Amino acid sequence: MTKELGSPVTSMPMIEGAARRLSGIATETPLLSSPFLDQIAGRRVLIKAECLQLTGSFKFRGAYSAISALEDDERRRGVIAFSSGNHAQGVALAARMFQISSTIVMPSDAPRAKIDNTRSLGAEVVLYDRHREDRDAIGFALSEERRQTLVRPYDDPQVIAGQGSVGLEIARQAKAFGINEAEVLVPCGGGGLASGIALALEQAAPGMQVRTCEPEGFDDAARSLAAGEITPNEGGGTTICDAIVTVQPGILTFPIMRRLCGEGLAVSDDEVREAMALAFSRLKIVLEPSGAVSLAAALFSKEKFKQGPLIVVASGGNSDAKILA
Amino acid sequence: MTKELGSPVTSMPMIEGAARRLSGIATETPLLSSPFLDQIAGRRVLIKAECLQLTGSFKFRGAYSAISALEDDERRRGVIAFSSGNHAQGVALAARMFQISSTIVMPSDAPRAKIDNTRSLGAEVVLYDRHREDRDAIGFALSEERRQTLVRPYDDPQVIAGQGSVGLEIARQAKAFGINEAEVLVPCGGGGLASGIALALEQAAPGMQVRTCEPEGFDDAARSLAAGEITPNEGGGTTICDAIVTVQPGILTFPIMRRLCGEGLAVSDDEVREAMALAFSRLKIVLEPSGAVSLAAALFSKEKFKQGPLIVVASGGNSDAKILA
Repeated sequence: MTKELGSPVTSMPMIEGAARRLSGIATETPLLSSPFLDQIAGRRVLIKAECLQLTGSFKFRGAYSAISALEDDERRRGVIAFSSGNHAQGVALAARMFQISSTIVMPSDAPRAKIDNTRSLGAEVVLYDRHREDRDAIGFALSEERRQTLVRPYDDPQVIAGQGSVGLEIARQAKAFGINEAEVLVPCGGGGLASGIALALEQAAPGMQVRTCEPEGFDDAARSLAAGEITPNEGGGTTICDAIVTVQPGILTFPIMRRLCGEGLAVSDDEVREAMALAFSRLKIVLEPSGAVSLAAALFSKEKFKQGPLIVVASGGNSDAKILA
Repeated sequence: MTKELGSPVTSMPMIEGAARRLSGIATETPLLSSPFLDQIAGRRVLIKAECLQLTGSFKFRGAYSAISALEDDERRRGVIAFSSGNHAQGVALAARMFQISSTIVMPSDAPRAKIDNTRSLGAEVVLYDRHREDRDAIGFALSEERRQTLVRPYDDPQVIAGQGSVGLEIARQAKAFGINEAEVLVPCGGGGLASGIALALEQAAPGMQVRTCEPEGFDDAARSLAAGEITPNEGGGTTICDAIVTVQPGILTFPIMRRLCGEGLAVSDDEVREAMALAFSRLKIVLEPSGAVSLAAALFSKEKFKQGPLIVVASGGNSDAKILA
C-alpha cells in the first residue's frame, strides 16, 4: 500500500487545488504587525500567524490536502501517520472531518498532552518504544496490514501543495498592505512548508523570496543550500526547537528549495526565547520554539537581509506553558 | 473646541467609509475555531480575535476612524483623549500614523507598562492624581487650551463606525464558513463595540444578533437592556475585567443596543479565567480578562442561547502576564 499520493511533483495548479479544498475549512490566518517589532527590526515586519491554524500549526493544511486528494475508496480505508506532534494532530483532525479512521504511531514517551490531544481528535494512537523499536517498520507494517494510506509529514506532493496555500495567502494579504517585494522567513524541518511557500510565491509574488530558518547546530537546510546538495547535520548538541529537528531536508522538498530559496538562516535558543516573549507581549500570540525561529531571525539577524520588508511565517503554537513562562 | 465629530448618528455608509479608511492599515483579524472549544460549548464557536488588532485591541479601529474623518486643518492641530488603557494606545498609534500630535490624560497610578507603551507610540502623556483631580476637567481644559479635538472612547459616531468595521468582517468571514445565522457575543463597557457591530450586522447579516457580555456585578448594559432605559450599576464589588467597567452604557450607544441587541449576559471572574486559559491553550491567543468575557459566556452560559453557532468577539489582549499565569 504505502504508495505515493498523486503526481510526483508539486505544481502551481496543485497548490491552487489544495487552497480551494481548504477554503471554508482551514483558518485564513492573518498577517499581523506591531510598531514595537518594526522598531526592533528596523524595518516593516509582517507575521503570518499559522499558530492560529486549526490544531495549532500549519500541518493541518498539508494533512487535509493529502487526505482530500485521495480517491474515495482509498480514503475510506483510513490513513496512517508517524508523528509525535503537530503532523499527528493535523492528520487526526483532517481524518475526522472526512469521517474516516486514522492511526497515529507515536513514541511511548511523547508528552501526555500530545497523546491525549491526538486521541481526543478521534485517532487510534499506537505507541512504540523509541529505544527498542523501529518506527518506520511498525508504520509500514500497520499500513500494509490495515491497507491504510501513509500520510508523510513533508515528502509528499499533496502535503507540499497544502503547505503552499500559506504562500498564496501571503501574496494576497501582503498586496493589501502595498507589499510586493519581501524576504519571507520560514521555519524549516523537512522543508514541506518552505518548499510549498516558495513554489506558490514563484508565480503569485515573484518579488518575494523564501529564506529557511533553523536552530543553530541543526541547520541542515542552510548547510544543504550552501553546498548545493543534501548535507546532513553533524549531530550532537541540543535545542528547544524539537519540532523542526531533522537530519536532512526531504528528497522532494530540497530540489525545490535549492532552486528557489535564498541563503539559509540559523538562530540561537536564546534568540528564540526572546522572540516567543515578544510574540506574546506585542502580537498576543502563543508560539512554540520551532514556530518562533523565523521571528527570531527577523529581529536578531538584521545583517543577513536586503533592504525592505520581512514576512515572518510563525508556523506553530503548541508550546508547553512552562517554556513560555 | 471639544466638538462632536461629524454626524450625530452612525449609519451604515459611515461604517463602510470607516472600513475603507482602515483597509490596508488595520489588521483584518481572523475568525478562529477549535474542535476542543466546540466540544465544551456543544456547538460551533467562531472567535473573532480582535486581540490581534494593532495595539492589542479593537480600540485602534475607532480611534483611527475618528481621526481619519476629521477635516485636515482640524486634524493638524492634534488630538486628545482620556484613557488609562486600550483607547489611549489606539489614539496614540492612529495619531502617529497621521503624523499629528496626541495628548493622553492618564491617572498617575496607571500601570507603568501602559504609560510607557503610550509614550513609545509618540503621545504626550499628562498624568493626574485620580484621588484629587477631575480627569474630565483637565481634559476639557487642555482641549480648549491646545485647540485639540477630543476623541471620546465610545460616545462618538465615527468611533462607533470604526468599531462597526468588525461587524462587516464577521458577516463576510462567517459566510465563507457557510454561517449566516448566529448569536454574536460582544464584551461591553460603554457599548461602542457592541453598538457598532449591531449596526453593521443589521444590514450585512440580518440573521445575526449581538448579545452584550459583562462581568457579574458590573452588568449595566444587561440591566439597561432589561429595563429598556439606561440603568447604572449598583456599585460595590470588584472584578478582574477592569477595562470594561463603566457606570452605565453611553448616550449614543444605548439606543442602538436597545433596538438591536438581545438579552445581556454576565459572567463570573472564575469563568473569565478559565476562558483565558482555554484561549491560550486551544487558540494560541492571549486575552485580557475584559476581552474574554464573551468566550466565557459562550462556553459556560449554554442555557442562555438559541440553537446554532456562536460568534465570539475576543476584544483585547493587553493582559498582565501575571493574571494569565
